[in-house]
Amino acid sequence: MQNELAKLLSPKAVAVVGASPREGSVAGTILRNLDACGFSGDIFAVNPKYENVLGFTCYATIAELPESTDLAILAINRSLVLRAVEDCGKRGIRHLVIITAGFKEAGEEGEQLEGALRELIETYDLNVVGPNCMGIIHRSERVKLNASFSRWFLPGGGIGFISQSGSLGETLLESFEEAGLGVSTFINLGNRAGLTENDFLRQLAKDPACRAIFLYLESFADPAEFRRILDSINRDKPVVVLKAGRTEAGAAAVASHTGSLASPDAIVDAFLRQCGALRVTTIDEALSALRVLQKGIVPAGNRVAILTNAGGAGIIAADACERLGIDVPALPQDIQSKLREFLPPEAGYGNPVDMIATAGSSDYESALKIVLPAVDAAIVIFRPPMVYHEPVENVADGILRVLEKMPDKPVLVCTLSRDAMVLPLVERLQEQWIPSYVMPETAVSGIDVLCRVKALGARRHEESPSDTHDANAARRILEQADGEGRSGLFFSEGADILSAYGLTVCPFTYLESLEEGVRFFEGVDGPIVLKIDSPQLLHRFEFNAVITDIETHADLIHAYLRLRETLDSLQMPDARILAQQMLEGRELIIGLDRDPSFGPAIMFGIGGTLVEALRDVAFGVAPISRAEAETMIRSIRAFPLLQAFRGQPAVDLEPLIDIITGLSQLAVDCESIAELDLNPVIATPEGTFAVDILFRIEKPAPQGTGLIIR
Amino acid sequence: MQNELAKLLSPKAVAVVGASPREGSVAGTILRNLDACGFSGDIFAVNPKYENVLGFTCYATIAELPESTDLAILAINRSLVLRAVEDCGKRGIRHLVIITAGFKEAGEEGEQLEGALRELIETYDLNVVGPNCMGIIHRSERVKLNASFSRWFLPGGGIGFISQSGSLGETLLESFEEAGLGVSTFINLGNRAGLTENDFLRQLAKDPACRAIFLYLESFADPAEFRRILDSINRDKPVVVLKAGRTEAGAAAVASHTGSLASPDAIVDAFLRQCGALRVTTIDEALSALRVLQKGIVPAGNRVAILTNAGGAGIIAADACERLGIDVPALPQDIQSKLREFLPPEAGYGNPVDMIATAGSSDYESALKIVLPAVDAAIVIFRPPMVYHEPVENVADGILRVLEKMPDKPVLVCTLSRDAMVLPLVERLQEQWIPSYVMPETAVSGIDVLCRVKALGARRHEESPSDTHDANAARRILEQADGEGRSGLFFSEGADILSAYGLTVCPFTYLESLEEGVRFFEGVDGPIVLKIDSPQLLHRFEFNAVITDIETHADLIHAYLRLRETLDSLQMPDARILAQQMLEGRELIIGLDRDPSFGPAIMFGIGGTLVEALRDVAFGVAPISRAEAETMIRSIRAFPLLQAFRGQPAVDLEPLIDIITGLSQLAVDCESIAELDLNPVIATPEGTFAVDILFRIEKPAPQGTGLIIR
Repeated sequence: MQNELAKLLSPKAVAVVGASPREGSVAGTILRNLDACGFSGDIFAVNPKYENVLGFTCYATIAELPESTDLAILAINRSLVLRAVEDCGKRGIRHLVIITAGFKEAGEEGEQLEGALRELIETYDLNVVGPNCMGIIHRSERVKLNASFSRWFLPGGGIGFISQSGSLGETLLESFEEAGLGVSTFINLGNRAGLTENDFLRQLAKDPACRAIFLYLESFADPAEFRRILDSINRDKPVVVLKAGRTEAGAAAVASHTGSLASPDAIVDAFLRQCGALRVTTIDEALSALRVLQKGIVPAGNRVAILTNAGGAGIIAADACERLGIDVPALPQDIQSKLREFLPPEAGYGNPVDMIATAGSSDYESALKIVLPAVDAAIVIFRPPMVYHEPVENVADGILRVLEKMPDKPVLVCTLSRDAMVLPLVERLQEQWIPSYVMPETAVSGIDVLCRVKALGARRHEESPSDTHDANAARRILEQADGEGRSGLFFSEGADILSAYGLTVCPFTYLESLEEGVRFFEGVDGPIVLKIDSPQLLHRFEFNAVITDIETHADLIHAYLRLRETLDSLQMPDARILAQQMLEGRELIIGLDRDPSFGPAIMFGIGGTLVEALRDVAFGVAPISRAEAETMIRSIRAFPLLQAFRGQPAVDLEPLIDIITGLSQLAVDCESIAELDLNPVIATPEGTFAVDILFRIEKPAPQGTGLIIR
Repeated sequence: MQNELAKLLSPKAVAVVGASPREGSVAGTILRNLDACGFSGDIFAVNPKYENVLGFTCYATIAELPESTDLAILAINRSLVLRAVEDCGKRGIRHLVIITAGFKEAGEEGEQLEGALRELIETYDLNVVGPNCMGIIHRSERVKLNASFSRWFLPGGGIGFISQSGSLGETLLESFEEAGLGVSTFINLGNRAGLTENDFLRQLAKDPACRAIFLYLESFADPAEFRRILDSINRDKPVVVLKAGRTEAGAAAVASHTGSLASPDAIVDAFLRQCGALRVTTIDEALSALRVLQKGIVPAGNRVAILTNAGGAGIIAADACERLGIDVPALPQDIQSKLREFLPPEAGYGNPVDMIATAGSSDYESALKIVLPAVDAAIVIFRPPMVYHEPVENVADGILRVLEKMPDKPVLVCTLSRDAMVLPLVERLQEQWIPSYVMPETAVSGIDVLCRVKALGARRHEESPSDTHDANAARRILEQADGEGRSGLFFSEGADILSAYGLTVCPFTYLESLEEGVRFFEGVDGPIVLKIDSPQLLHRFEFNAVITDIETHADLIHAYLRLRETLDSLQMPDARILAQQMLEGRELIIGLDRDPSFGPAIMFGIGGTLVEALRDVAFGVAPISRAEAETMIRSIRAFPLLQAFRGQPAVDLEPLIDIITGLSQLAVDCESIAELDLNPVIATPEGTFAVDILFRIEKPAPQGTGLIIR
């Protein structure tokens, strides 16, 4: 497929089907764009009404097109599309861009048309972009192709841009131009009847001209495939994703806490983080990220120096760094001394270094040379003061000379102005892909992007979770329950499944008699708990089916008799009394839910009231590596509660990581597990134990349900 | 003073002291600006070297200036400033703008100069802006004055802008122009040796040409005065504050939790919220806020409709609304039906209303007319599609016609482009102060500003907390402790002070003997607690000086004897054993700390591990109204834990509000209270009680310590 797409993007001869010289005709606009962009191949038109359109030979039918034609752009009436696609297939034109709208997005009739279109794509093995799209753009050393009706054919550059939306794609291309961003490839996917973002991701991954990939998506065509491709993309080619679109929470009732807390957006966040993609939430954030990634220098850490000739702007930049957790360290005395050799006494020698309005280009160069070795990156703020006698580009030249010596340190520039007076500076920097910004906060957000990309990169090439689990044992238990028509499990069955994955469960036994209860009580250290256990009983607390703090024989007798009574009233013939040791420690909740598009998601949170009231939980999409599991644990707001605190030792994270990765593997191995709560898991100094276990099982959905749209 | 400042801003005759025709001279630039701005009064120069500067009469000395001169701009060498100020005083010129730098900001010598300058200001009763500033700008129907070296003399408009920083002021003026914001008054305060932001706030409050006030501050000259002025400003004149500058946490050791958790920035946040000012954190946010406030229509609620001809941008806008808590309600069926009468079937009829690319100006007008009555505000997204045959300004005209009928509903426009093709639309809207934005997220942030301003406005005209407290009783106790050289209080003394403010304390007694302990234990319901109490003992837990859960006589005997032993070892002769009823309920922490510039701050949080580990606390600056206290309580992240939850009833907020407002009043009444922790306060169904009380008292600082810089 990759070679195929390289051909789609570098055609020998393009035919615009439906081309007309009429003012405002879409096909005509595309023809004009193809003409104007400098495309070196042949261009033909297809339209029975003309022999020539805008100077290009026009054929009456697709069948008459010259044999060299390898890309057809269809911009014709909806009713003519299927016929034209078939004609292309028959003529051997295998690359198509279908501009025409009115398919899946336009009601039932359109959906049927799109279904028929998919069949033709299959039959003739076609590479189709669209329908309902604005086209494709490619601009490399070798090829200039604007096969779209976009007004923006940008100077070539390092960004590969895949947009699901057309109008937003056009908006972004316009913004790219303002931001000094060049595009090597632009694809508007439209309805994705044929090619998807995944096909073009594979193509861009191999394209050396593409230095960073940007996707605007409203849904994922195939998330698992997306993740596989991103795993294979080299880490020096960052992937930035603007994922829009709220998804209504599923209407199906959920039994578990995990299910009730799984917001679709939290799962998208987790998914993209695990893919190593940088998720941005606004268009401006996307532009800011791409500008800084285009240069492609990632800092070694998050220590930033700020040089400025305007005190207030320096303060604002430092404030913004603090908000984002970027370190603006005080400069060591020896560095301050070196600065004092040429800066005036009124200058500020902390960090920001306020060089005051008299600073010239040599001051900037000297200060940057002295300061940069002590930090990981720098923000240089230079607004030409009222009295300034040098060409402003000298400041840029000084910065560039310093960077020649220290090319691994990102330096971002802020001008506090977009006035013409700063343009020579901005342009000089732009030639070397050094981004410059008007506002200090935007420059800081650029540094933040670099730090985030560095953190994502650090998560590369991780080990996969171990595969020493006994999946067959787990499957046997689930199949037996399913055979009995159950959607729940006994505690003991759940415990067996967890044990098959190496996870420890709180010591327990079933009591057939009070005598057995006494034996259990006397055999464990400290108080015990009695519970009623039945696969039908999802929430024990609601039925008063749990009695805790059993500390004496008297407590035990009282509790046992009360639960016997409850048992009799419940009318659940399979219900039994479960005895457990009562553990002291910190309560956690770890669970599993299935998302309709992303598949199994594992949740981690602190148990008790926090998880319910604050929704302070973290998600990961299976499969989950150990490092990713640790990231999940550390990402909750209440993480400080797991560290050494008020005389309690820190919670050991390893067993928690075992549980998260184990459940992730379990979910992959056993598709019939629809939901699972371990609530609570209790971490004690002696070990970490699952204390309550809730499984919901259902028959896995049949394969091949088609495209999942989120 | 107000009339004085009106005169300063509308002088009859201005003298520029130090004016010279030299290229790059600051005074010369000011003279040129005065000349070019259209100032209708007289302009003179003062410089012994010239008889005429740039066509204006030049006097050798200030003493020779014509009597009409009422404003002097000093842009002279630092060494000449004091003499010139004195000359102005003697000549009767009472309004001065001192541009010259090198004062307080420039080391010891400069500080001494500024001290001498302050004395002259006092002696001659002068109104001085600066020193170290770029000047002032005023532009009204009557007066045009650019008494600054700023390049930006904007078309008159509704914004009164006070900036502490010069370079940032200039940056913002440039941005104002781009953003279509007009400035009625611009003041660069500089070092504030004379006039401060408070003086100009009073002036702008009275100026009908000023529709919104914007301040850039790095510190407050006098926060209490600032708050008084803002309280008196009419609510239809919003005040936007960009407060920059991190403040290092005070180095002094703090005894209380409240003190350790009081971050300066949290207190600035609380202070500005209580002032009814809108705090913004970035320059772009400031511009976005001012653009939308310039029109001055605040919506009645936060229900927003989104109309668009570009689907993706509509989704992005809806996403941004969701993130900010702005409601994008589904439209009622009858409204959808009316839309269906003229929009095509492929249009989206939810909210956003996606009118697709074929929508013309009449579609926009009709749709807005139908949709707007159902919501509080609207975002209209219109990007001219490739094929568009109308003048784009027709869309603006349609919107304006709808707004004539519904003038109380804000409508913001988003063009997805800043290309020339959209300019006629943008300009037509700008004439009516309807803001238009390129990006959908920025338009949404404009709506967010309006919602926040509405919320701030709702807090107006609140009752002051009641003043029925017995402050004298509290003061007597504090004076006695101070007389005894103590910096702490006995629990009983703290309880008496709280009682004097109507606050309830957990039932307690002191035990002189075990017999008294038995009597207390038998007199209360449920378990009790024994503690050691001494004014010297700040953190009882550290000394094992607290024993809880005393449920039996045996427990009591054991606990009493153990504490007696501890007591003997502590070497605190005044220490006693305190017995308290042990309360069951939800733990809270409420405390008091004094901020060096903002004065007493009250903290509220949920007690136990949460407050320490998560720093999830809210602050208010005294005095605190009941409504503000409720806002504090509701603002903590863990607030859901105080609502009805897991079978527990909701915590009654009224007693918590009593405590917050009571401590606020106590702090104002009794300046010797440096810190105070009520930790925990326990809310039970029977009442809300302070359970532990920690006071730290110190002699109040002497009055008149001069300007407090934060």
